[in-house]
Amino acid sequence: MAGNSFGTVFTLTTFGESHGPALGGIIDGCPAGLKLDFEAIESEMQRRMPGQSNIVTQRKELDSIKFLSGIFEGITTGSPIGFIIENTDQKSPDYSHIKDTYRPSHADYTYDQKYGIRDYRGGGRSSARETACRVAAGAIAKQLLKQVKITAYVSSVGNLEVTKPYQELDFAEIEKNPVRCADPEIARQMEAYIKEVRKEGDTVGGSISCVIQNVPIGLGEPVFDKLHAQLGKAMLSINAVKGFEYGSGFAGTRLKGSEHNDLFNPDGSTKTNHSGGVQGGISNGEDIYFKVAFKPVATIMQKQETIDSDGKVVEMQGKGRHDPCVVPRAVPIVEAMAALVVADFYLLNQLSKL
Amino acid sequence: MAGNSFGTVFTLTTFGESHGPALGGIIDGCPAGLKLDFEAIESEMQRRMPGQSNIVTQRKELDSIKFLSGIFEGITTGSPIGFIIENTDQKSPDYSHIKDTYRPSHADYTYDQKYGIRDYRGGGRSSARETACRVAAGAIAKQLLKQVKITAYVSSVGNLEVTKPYQELDFAEIEKNPVRCADPEIARQMEAYIKEVRKEGDTVGGSISCVIQNVPIGLGEPVFDKLHAQLGKAMLSINAVKGFEYGSGFAGTRLKGSEHNDLFNPDGSTKTNHSGGVQGGISNGEDIYFKVAFKPVATIMQKQETIDSDGKVVEMQGKGRHDPCVVPRAVPIVEAMAALVVADFYLLNQLSKL
Amino acid sequence: MAGNSFGTVFTLTTFGESHGPALGGIIDGCPAGLKLDFEAIESEMQRRMPGQSNIVTQRKELDSIKFLSGIFEGITTGSPIGFIIENTDQKSPDYSHIKDTYRPSHADYTYDQKYGIRDYRGGGRSSARETACRVAAGAIAKQLLKQVKITAYVSSVGNLEVTKPYQELDFAEIEKNPVRCADPEIARQMEAYIKEVRKEGDTVGGSISCVIQNVPIGLGEPVFDKLHAQLGKAMLSINAVKGFEYGSGFAGTRLKGSEHNDLFNPDGSTKTNHSGGVQGGISNGEDIYFKVAFKPVATIMQKQETIDSDGKVVEMQGKGRHDPCVVPRAVPIVEAMAALVVADFYLLNQLSKL
Amino acid sequence: MAGNSFGTVFTLTTFGESHGPALGGIIDGCPAGLKLDFEAIESEMQRRMPGQSNIVTQRKELDSIKFLSGIFEGITTGSPIGFIIENTDQKSPDYSHIKDTYRPSHADYTYDQKYGIRDYRGGGRSSARETACRVAAGAIAKQLLKQVKITAYVSSVGNLEVTKPYQELDFAEIEKNPVRCADPEIARQMEAYIKEVRKEGDTVGGSISCVIQNVPIGLGEPVFDKLHAQLGKAMLSINAVKGFEYGSGFAGTRLKGSEHNDLFNPDGSTKTNHSGGVQGGISNGEDIYFKVAFKPVATIMQKQETIDSDGKVVEMQGKGRHDPCVVPRAVPIVEAMAALVVADFYLLNQLSKL
Repeated sequence: MAGNSFGTVFTLTTFGESHGPALGGIIDGCPAGLKLDFEAIESEMQRRMPGQSNIVTQRKELDSIKFLSGIFEGITTGSPIGFIIENTDQKSPDYSHIKDTYRPSHADYTYDQKYGIRDYRGGGRSSARETACRVAAGAIAKQLLKQVKITAYVSSVGNLEVTKPYQELDFAEIEKNPVRCADPEIARQMEAYIKEVRKEGDTVGGSISCVIQNVPIGLGEPVFDKLHAQLGKAMLSINAVKGFEYGSGFAGTRLKGSEHNDLFNPDGSTKTNHSGGVQGGISNGEDIYFKVAFKPVATIMQKQETIDSDGKVVEMQGKGRHDPCVVPRAVPIVEAMAALVVADFYLLNQLSKL
Repeated sequence: MAGNSFGTVFTLTTFGESHGPALGGIIDGCPAGLKLDFEAIESEMQRRMPGQSNIVTQRKELDSIKFLSGIFEGITTGSPIGFIIENTDQKSPDYSHIKDTYRPSHADYTYDQKYGIRDYRGGGRSSARETACRVAAGAIAKQLLKQVKITAYVSSVGNLEVTKPYQELDFAEIEKNPVRCADPEIARQMEAYIKEVRKEGDTVGGSISCVIQNVPIGLGEPVFDKLHAQLGKAMLSINAVKGFEYGSGFAGTRLKGSEHNDLFNPDGSTKTNHSGGVQGGISNGEDIYFKVAFKPVATIMQKQETIDSDGKVVEMQGKGRHDPCVVPRAVPIVEAMAALVVADFYLLNQLSKL
Repeated sequence: MAGNSFGTVFTLTTFGESHGPALGGIIDGCPAGLKLDFEAIESEMQRRMPGQSNIVTQRKELDSIKFLSGIFEGITTGSPIGFIIENTDQKSPDYSHIKDTYRPSHADYTYDQKYGIRDYRGGGRSSARETACRVAAGAIAKQLLKQVKITAYVSSVGNLEVTKPYQELDFAEIEKNPVRCADPEIARQMEAYIKEVRKEGDTVGGSISCVIQNVPIGLGEPVFDKLHAQLGKAMLSINAVKGFEYGSGFAGTRLKGSEHNDLFNPDGSTKTNHSGGVQGGISNGEDIYFKVAFKPVATIMQKQETIDSDGKVVEMQGKGRHDPCVVPRAVPIVEAMAALVVADFYLLNQLSKL
Repeated sequence: MAGNSFGTVFTLTTFGESHGPALGGIIDGCPAGLKLDFEAIESEMQRRMPGQSNIVTQRKELDSIKFLSGIFEGITTGSPIGFIIENTDQKSPDYSHIKDTYRPSHADYTYDQKYGIRDYRGGGRSSARETACRVAAGAIAKQLLKQVKITAYVSSVGNLEVTKPYQELDFAEIEKNPVRCADPEIARQMEAYIKEVRKEGDTVGGSISCVIQNVPIGLGEPVFDKLHAQLGKAMLSINAVKGFEYGSGFAGTRLKGSEHNDLFNPDGSTKTNHSGGVQGGISNGEDIYFKVAFKPVATIMQKQETIDSDGKVVEMQGKGRHDPCVVPRAVPIVEAMAALVVADFYLLNQLSKL
């Protein structure tokens, strides 16, 4: 496969560029008999949509999803679920200036080098608009995983960090602030900071934490498709992601085994959870938690020197409406990718033993 | 696939438990016509082997590799390359004590839960001995990628860290010290610290940095199989890994776009390399660099409380010869997995354009 | 994958039911830089369309294809090519009578048993309408294989058979008659016979022969993905197909080795071609030829006894406009599937040797 | 994958050449908890072995299988099952004469063209010896499918054919005669004929029929991975196979719909079974039956003109001990491949509905 499919038995294949007639995808391997809650799907789509608050891009994209197959009278049939998300405004007046120019830290140069041709309108295939399809598929995966609870939230923006462990946070706060930070006090600071950065015509990075609760024991397929390895790939495949850690993560490298080991309770649960819910690549029933690093958005509203396709140095400046910070809108994407991973392993695990 | 295969066109499938008659694997998709340097392969195997220095386990494993197919008169034929690594000493006198006991932070409990049965001898399939097969395959991948240079080194042990950027290090130092640290001064400190930890019967975590140089432009398959996403999965699939970051990584989340963007030189190279050699999931010709976090080894020589398979609390203590710190021996594994990823994308990229 | 994808590197994934809003698919792995001839694609679609002559169904389906991605200014970009074919008339007045009834020799019963739910309108996912997507993708594969010539024709209808070997036929005749038979005299007899069968409210089977010329040497991936094995799977995956043979086929079982062996000419070509252009699963540069058996269409305009979903015996009769013989319209489908197979192996073979 | 893997979740990957140190394979995806009957496996291996009767090759190959992993105390653990079959006599004195010569209707020429290098000893990778690995894996698949009964038998040799339908045959006869023909009278004629052909230094083709009974309803994954499509591919991937038909097959093309349709009994079974147990690509619970065409073995003991790798015409004659007719020894291979297909779909079908 040429990179546009994800999953082993519950699979998503996506297509589409930011300024083509439509994006879309095919979900294959969703078991028959799942009654879909379409409002829940639409609600996930809206969490990712531009224009939802004053700290994200004010671009208008109506991410209304149209299901074309695989569902009959509201229930999945076991046939592939095709869907499209139309690009209602395909005109690209804003992008002619980048036709022959490579934006710094974008994919313009690498796409041109790899393919010898590039749909330059709005980033084409490399646009984060593609993630709308992931959110749609993830919303269905979530419904397949009724008992599992997947919660992501912004845990840092620039140097502003949530320092409390997730157990001390009230997840109900997340959707109450535009940053989607689980700590309301830090959220206010983040919001102010993002506005300030935007005023400078600049952007800033951040990180998202995610917790998966009530995961059945046994998910993950050693040795290469360990649960956390597939989660890591899923997250790293999201635009702008630079790092992934789970459980004790990078901080765990500083610990000794005697500090890090998770001792058992008699029921098989563990007294601590440095393992992050995964041991030997397989879920152990404890909470899975991980953190994802996002770099600052590359499109800034400041002048930058760059080159055109002839290697000539030119000056450019971002136009249009872009996110000063990507993490608030990436929260539902992180959840969606997590759901796709867990759903796939949930199904695969049905085949682990007689 | 049930998790034991890696790669799309250059693939490795492995089998084997730490105390069965042999481990082994099949490399499929290696192009015909590659003249193999068997000494180079053997030399990689020896870098991973136990007993090579006084800071790693003194266990004796003769990781001699036997190629069974796919090679004729020293040259690959395009047919699958089967190989085995015999377990010369299959007796398991040391492991009877864990037959019914779940070692903390090992895979004993999760394997039992997932499969309902477990080869308890030495960790069975979950043993890091499986990575010997990866090193063998990676050594062949390296030979396929003649012009690419892959260098990994230990960059932290506990709180001892290499702070110099890789450009200021002399990679020739790496194999000169038993820790495989590129900074000789820090290496000495690390070695002393590991010995101290071992004396306590404890273990400690660490991290490995890796640099891939001379990578052709265009490797990586968006959108799900981005080069860094597959690298991340590859690293996270190695035993004990808890995190992965590339380029600016987690630190990059603190930067602004104006600081983070890599401006172009007229020849398409970039003035800085926060991108870590990958933009939009595709290599841009700059150095690829990343860091991998390893937790402390779970087997410690101290008494720990744990449970047996009936949920009864028992006391246990590690026996035998284990690594006090895994990172020195993991260096060739990191390189091998990196080589597998790059070789696969190198071949796939032949098909990107007419 | 749950069965809706075909191919290894040049892949097609399809979705869609006969009476949903649209069918469609994603072609992934088509190299960038292919200038598409859209008229040629449309022309293939029309060859499959109902209503094109008086011996096929008079049902109206406007199989107009809409490309949604992966093409920029008429040229493939290396990104996935998404496309849809809208079902212009989604109303299903004709199908309510089969809602709870299992049509004999259709997929109604097996879909219900497998999935527990069934989109009964027009056969749903099991409808041959799905093959429209294959024809679309095959048309692009044909354009990728510029030098290869793929020609299918009807070689039997009921007992009426083309007995001349393909070398003695004029392929220019095929599109001149509504049966798509390469022998004009037999074509007339077939046409008359099909009309007669239709008058009886009955249907009849037939077979299609296909010849692939100018195939590069070296296509096919032993041992499981032999060129003819994948061709066979491709053909058997078409609705109503019951058999596949290539080269000497079933008749070859009667021969002796001394009669069957294809002796070489000094240039590597062979004096005879019982091998059908494939030796050891790899193309040898000779013509590939094969034959595909189609059963009679199951929907007949005669009364038949059958059962409903409660196991009650009921009487039913086909309604609507159905094909009395499927082979004329299946000719472009056979060609399309052949093109998909050859294109995939053509790309894979780029990776066979250094 | 480069063609050496088969299956989606229950997978077999094989390696090995006829004259290397060993052949072998990895079975991945076999559920844990299957208690293996090793005698049954060995017995399948012996059915395929050379030298078992006076009408097959008298070559000595001790196909003793060595399992290396994935099995603990006789029970599968869910980890990959690695195995090897050593080539006890690796010396190749008989093959030097074909080093630079292309045997007619063998894979010598195509392998050389595809890979630019060829292990010429005994056919190398293209040797039917590879099928020993399939028989081993198929034997395990059979044990997974306890209730399913898979029976293959020789149904024709040259012009000698079993004309009785399988329902009238006594399968207990099959292993009683060296031809493995289910009709003892025809078996005697076949045996005599094969001896005669061998005396002429010639070979002859034949066909194998196979019946799969007690198949659960619901196996097969539309649309591309239809049960019979995958069966067809499996059979066509066996050396020397030229055709595959199931159910009414090629003869069914002559029938009308009113004759061919399988009418239902109230319990969902059908009064006739032209469908061959598969409707819409999914098993319907009736017997699956199919027929496989084998060409005559290419190696004959007569002089033939051929060419060497320089295109020079040379004369050659088969040496050594070869089968005058391949079908008796191919019977267990057909069964094994059928078992692999059914086992894979059996597991996949667990995921079809909630």
